[in-house]
Amino acid sequence: MPYVRIELPPVVSKEAAHRIGDAVHEAMVETIAVPPDDKFQLITQHPAGAIVCTPEYLGVKHTERALFIQIFLAPGRTLQQKRALYAMVARDVARAADVSPSDVLISLVETLRENWSFGDGIAHYTL
Amino acid sequence: MPYVRIELPPVVSKEAAHRIGDAVHEAMVETIAVPPDDKFQLITQHPAGAIVCTPEYLGVKHTERALFIQIFLAPGRTLQQKRALYAMVARDVARAADVSPSDVLISLVETLRENWSFGDGIAHYTL
Amino acid sequence: MPYVRIELPPVVSKEAAHRIGDAVHEAMVETIAVPPDDKFQLITQHPAGAIVCTPEYLGVKHTERALFIQIFLAPGRTLQQKRALYAMVARDVARAADVSPSDVLISLVETLRENWSFGDGIAHYTL
Repeated sequence: MPYVRIELPPVVSKEAAHRIGDAVHEAMVETIAVPPDDKFQLITQHPAGAIVCTPEYLGVKHTERALFIQIFLAPGRTLQQKRALYAMVARDVARAADVSPSDVLISLVETLRENWSFGDGIAHYTL
Repeated sequence: MPYVRIELPPVVSKEAAHRIGDAVHEAMVETIAVPPDDKFQLITQHPAGAIVCTPEYLGVKHTERALFIQIFLAPGRTLQQKRALYAMVARDVARAADVSPSDVLISLVETLRENWSFGDGIAHYTL
Repeated sequence: MPYVRIELPPVVSKEAAHRIGDAVHEAMVETIAVPPDDKFQLITQHPAGAIVCTPEYLGVKHTERALFIQIFLAPGRTLQQKRALYAMVARDVARAADVSPSDVLISLVETLRENWSFGDGIAHYTL
């Protein structure tokens, strides 16, 4: 895995939701060497008011179209890889969701390779 | 705590949801020494399309019945304990949910013991 | 960021939800030096049964009003800061939500500063 949680505001259409998921996945394949068939996502469309986002932080402005992407993944990516990931996700998700790249918020949570089981009760990355 | 997030597809019945939660909890008690009364879970039933799961990864096949279990817990379990946990969760959740063990996906996120407060604003594990 | 996920039971009113979010944010500003405009939250109101909480653990009693607060943040806060955070969150969220402080459960997940992008595809904390 990575395991990707995508939190969408109501202004993003249901049709856009899976384009957004695909854009995140393609960026991970391209920039941090995630295998193409290693795709595990949870996409949630929230009612108005569920996503609470500052209007501006660190000079980046946010609107009611702000969306949150949280990626749980194994440690080991370099800062350079992470920068490339953020850049491609922001660009391509903005396009897929019809939002500004400033409204694409991303965070990573790294967790050990032994912490993943992809089914059948096996710790696949320790084999 | 552990704090367990269980994400269910619409094909899993509401009646099965709590059986699944109980199965995860009993496996944690049995395999990683979680106290029986240390039970904190969030169980969400998602609409169709919310859970996006590859049809196959690392030789494990997945269907529209795939469900995600994410366990936040204190560090310190051995690989052997984690393997026992995955095996028992996959077996017993599959039974409770009427899904294949290959559709039970598990990941762990470890976070320090000082990072938990079980109420009343106290850092219980640092006392 | 911190990125705060707040999980509410149905007995907590929609009006209370944002008061709860504000209380968590103000406590973070006050106790762990989060900038006031660094506010990113996801507030979810769950149906009955979604939040599963032990009736008692470590001497703390819980009811059907129990709510979960999970804070993802950069590492580096001291234990003393975390204790102050838990105390203020429990006190002020209890007041905002009209629940007992014993029903305010908090956990932290720390993730590196390079793991955050606040928009525009930039790793802001590495500049």
